[in-house]
Amino acid sequence: MKDVQKTKDTRNVDIQKVGIKNLDLPLMIERKDKHGKVVGATARVCVSLPKDYKGTHMSRFVEVLNEWQHKHLLGDDIKGCLEKIIESLDAQSGELEFNFKYFIEKFAPVTKLPSQMCYACSFEGRIYDGQYKFILGVTVPVTTLCPCSKEISDNGAHNQRAFIKVRVSYDEGNHIWIEDLIEMIESCASCPLYPLLKREDEKFVTEKAWENPRFVEDVLREVVVKLRENEIIKEFEVDCEAIESIHNHSAWAYQHEIK
Amino acid sequence: MKDVQKTKDTRNVDIQKVGIKNLDLPLMIERKDKHGKVVGATARVCVSLPKDYKGTHMSRFVEVLNEWQHKHLLGDDIKGCLEKIIESLDAQSGELEFNFKYFIEKFAPVTKLPSQMCYACSFEGRIYDGQYKFILGVTVPVTTLCPCSKEISDNGAHNQRAFIKVRVSYDEGNHIWIEDLIEMIESCASCPLYPLLKREDEKFVTEKAWENPRFVEDVLREVVVKLRENEIIKEFEVDCEAIESIHNHSAWAYQHEIK
Amino acid sequence: MKDVQKTKDTRNVDIQKVGIKNLDLPLMIERKDKHGKVVGATARVCVSLPKDYKGTHMSRFVEVLNEWQHKHLLGDDIKGCLEKIIESLDAQSGELEFNFKYFIEKFAPVTKLPSQMCYACSFEGRIYDGQYKFILGVTVPVTTLCPCSKEISDNGAHNQRAFIKVRVSYDEGNHIWIEDLIEMIESCASCPLYPLLKREDEKFVTEKAWENPRFVEDVLREVVVKLRENEIIKEFEVDCEAIESIHNHSAWAYQHEIK
Amino acid sequence: MKDVQKTKDTRNVDIQKVGIKNLDLPLMIERKDKHGKVVGATARVCVSLPKDYKGTHMSRFVEVLNEWQHKHLLGDDIKGCLEKIIESLDAQSGELEFNFKYFIEKFAPVTKLPSQMCYACSFEGRIYDGQYKFILGVTVPVTTLCPCSKEISDNGAHNQRAFIKVRVSYDEGNHIWIEDLIEMIESCASCPLYPLLKREDEKFVTEKAWENPRFVEDVLREVVVKLRENEIIKEFEVDCEAIESIHNHSAWAYQHEIK
Repeated sequence: MKDVQKTKDTRNVDIQKVGIKNLDLPLMIERKDKHGKVVGATARVCVSLPKDYKGTHMSRFVEVLNEWQHKHLLGDDIKGCLEKIIESLDAQSGELEFNFKYFIEKFAPVTKLPSQMCYACSFEGRIYDGQYKFILGVTVPVTTLCPCSKEISDNGAHNQRAFIKVRVSYDEGNHIWIEDLIEMIESCASCPLYPLLKREDEKFVTEKAWENPRFVEDVLREVVVKLRENEIIKEFEVDCEAIESIHNHSAWAYQHEIK
Repeated sequence: MKDVQKTKDTRNVDIQKVGIKNLDLPLMIERKDKHGKVVGATARVCVSLPKDYKGTHMSRFVEVLNEWQHKHLLGDDIKGCLEKIIESLDAQSGELEFNFKYFIEKFAPVTKLPSQMCYACSFEGRIYDGQYKFILGVTVPVTTLCPCSKEISDNGAHNQRAFIKVRVSYDEGNHIWIEDLIEMIESCASCPLYPLLKREDEKFVTEKAWENPRFVEDVLREVVVKLRENEIIKEFEVDCEAIESIHNHSAWAYQHEIK
Repeated sequence: MKDVQKTKDTRNVDIQKVGIKNLDLPLMIERKDKHGKVVGATARVCVSLPKDYKGTHMSRFVEVLNEWQHKHLLGDDIKGCLEKIIESLDAQSGELEFNFKYFIEKFAPVTKLPSQMCYACSFEGRIYDGQYKFILGVTVPVTTLCPCSKEISDNGAHNQRAFIKVRVSYDEGNHIWIEDLIEMIESCASCPLYPLLKREDEKFVTEKAWENPRFVEDVLREVVVKLRENEIIKEFEVDCEAIESIHNHSAWAYQHEIK
Repeated sequence: MKDVQKTKDTRNVDIQKVGIKNLDLPLMIERKDKHGKVVGATARVCVSLPKDYKGTHMSRFVEVLNEWQHKHLLGDDIKGCLEKIIESLDAQSGELEFNFKYFIEKFAPVTKLPSQMCYACSFEGRIYDGQYKFILGVTVPVTTLCPCSKEISDNGAHNQRAFIKVRVSYDEGNHIWIEDLIEMIESCASCPLYPLLKREDEKFVTEKAWENPRFVEDVLREVVVKLRENEIIKEFEVDCEAIESIHNHSAWAYQHEIK
């Protein structure tokens, strides 16, 4: 059967990225408590393709990913999977990204009742010029309470759910647990969120947000200061979007720093 | 050229609905101020298909919709378009739905500064057994402030953006303007939203929400009472979802009543 | 601390549904192979609320769901969870729905290579007037190849990915496995989908789709005939939407039957 | 009333981007045929904020955007709006992006019947270090037919809807019409899409796709070659994603070039 992909191409275009997107697959993730948990992940994976070849071999991406689904992945160790993909496709560079929902047990602040809080997370690996780069991503929903609204109003202050997306890079040999990164980020908001709150807890979070008013600018700066202080982290992005309760649009702030 | 759709089918299934979905088209809508405005609408349209025919003729839906895009539509008058579709497809029944974003000028509560607020709206027509039914739909984003949080906390109260979706039916000959339905719904929340608020306005909306705490249950009931009182409306649905600022899930209430 | 929810309401509105939406939680599902697997589910849950009470107690929904997350759920057995919720909220009726992604191992048609295919599934339970109703839902992506395009063209035929959503109800005491329902639905399309296909497999699925041209009307009728034949199923809905490769809209068909 | 935003911040973080997202507003766009049309746009706008200031003044973004909604925008001329925003916020740099749906009349290839085809488009402007950069974006849905599937199969070939996203930059003084960019991109696929196709047209597009098999790699290269040839364009991005009809994932290719 003819290998159409391997036929010669003459258009003189080295393709930077070619691969597959939106592939759902189960992945075994190693948690901080050392128990592996299966998550339903969505993968994006690609390689470079030299100008001489008409196409890449898409099925090989799926084959390699299949082999890796049972590993207890830590995140940074997706390097092995990406190297295998690049080798299998006979390519020079590549990228691999997994997006998944991750549950962490949280305890209500007063009653200490447990519930499972869900966070959107990602592992991304890139190899260019033989150099590996890993990026850990988390999206943390929190409460923000507006300092201006509190200051100028006789009573109350508008507050809302906000989403803090953080992506951090660090060198091989180091490791950051999803659990620790999320805890750090939650400490930067007016108040964290909880799936389960009894009345005593609701009183607590309402008053805590009141005591800690934060613009998106404040949340961003709090997170940036903490990420700058962390010696392991070499590069980071912070994106904070507040689903304003007084508007139908979002307040938004963004920062990208390379140390 | 053979008409495959017209060939005989023997599986004994009268199809209830067959047609097209997610067709984008421009539509001219007549506003309350009597000025027509073009909106980008997404259409769903379908007819019934008797068991003897293999398929419907999909292109005719698009042909009839094309003819109707320049009318100054009021909503309830999509009956003509639906009748034409049913006739064109030689069908017994059918449905036609347009979803679109609709802008209304709002004035900030204190400074009176104008800005354009956007609402997701829909016109839906159905003909079954020769009877026409029209449904007007609007989704109105508002603020809700939690009565429980206000009551039990020393300071502040959690509040958030909430979405009130209302769908109403009324007889031919009557008419309800989108503008009026939205104004009525906004009056049922803790406070309406505005695209543009200066500091004096922000103080006003913060304090107004504080003075009008509402659970989703309260908002639902306020809307239901108003819809019951409206003599034109024969049937309604209300769906209220609050994007809770203290949780990562929504509080939600729903009602459907036929008078 | 005052129980604001319990205070008296005088607006004379018995609320039909009040509860929470978009709550993410992990659920243990029992598979046909008798192995339990954890899925990340999104829950919607609600109860009725009599006109005398201002509000329901939202935290109790989360408490009961937390208790049930470790059961090896079969689907129809969410009745116990729903009964507990209704009792806990002192309500008359209620609904409970879980939406989740479910992986099933599939084997490529020629090479027999295994891969994990993902399906969006749902369990929904309702109790009204003391009667329990269970609805199992699956969304099955497939290929459809257009009979008309094949018939009238000198070469080729347009084909595309289509989504067949099926929801079935059956009585307690009976059981339908997700795995079996999906297999039945896939047999009704031009061809099933696979995450992993080598060249021999690609030849096979291309030719199979060619041999089995299907309009959305055909797919719908094939599924309807099979669901009518199944004696356990008491009620069903079928929704077939084809992401047309020659248009930027979908072809769509829908059927709802109560036996 | 206190201006909380203006108070001094001591955390030593110059914020790169702060502003608003997901603001819906109507915009008047100038078309190639010289007729202005109003579109419903979604805006993202931001500026930099020096470390000494606690917050930006969010309402000013909305005020300036309001002033600009009635201009007959060409795209590249959003510079004026962005300069006004930067001035109004007393900032050093900023970004402004409008996303909107744009209708273009298309004629069926054989019957020449007209219909309105909808394309997602964007205008993006950035000012950093006093330098203005404009980016025009379009997303063009097309058909791709797989060369491998055609080659190895006895009959037929899988094909599907694919989305080609292109973003191009060019200098002030030059101009590219959305209409022209889309036409160029459509010529690179196996076949363009049309909202309205009668049987003769369906035969035409089926056969045309058959005669022009294209991998995502092929489509990408065709577009890249054309963008390289265009002397006005200084920088471009191409993203091609095919909604594979034989898989439940996408085939995908991406290129970014600065001339």
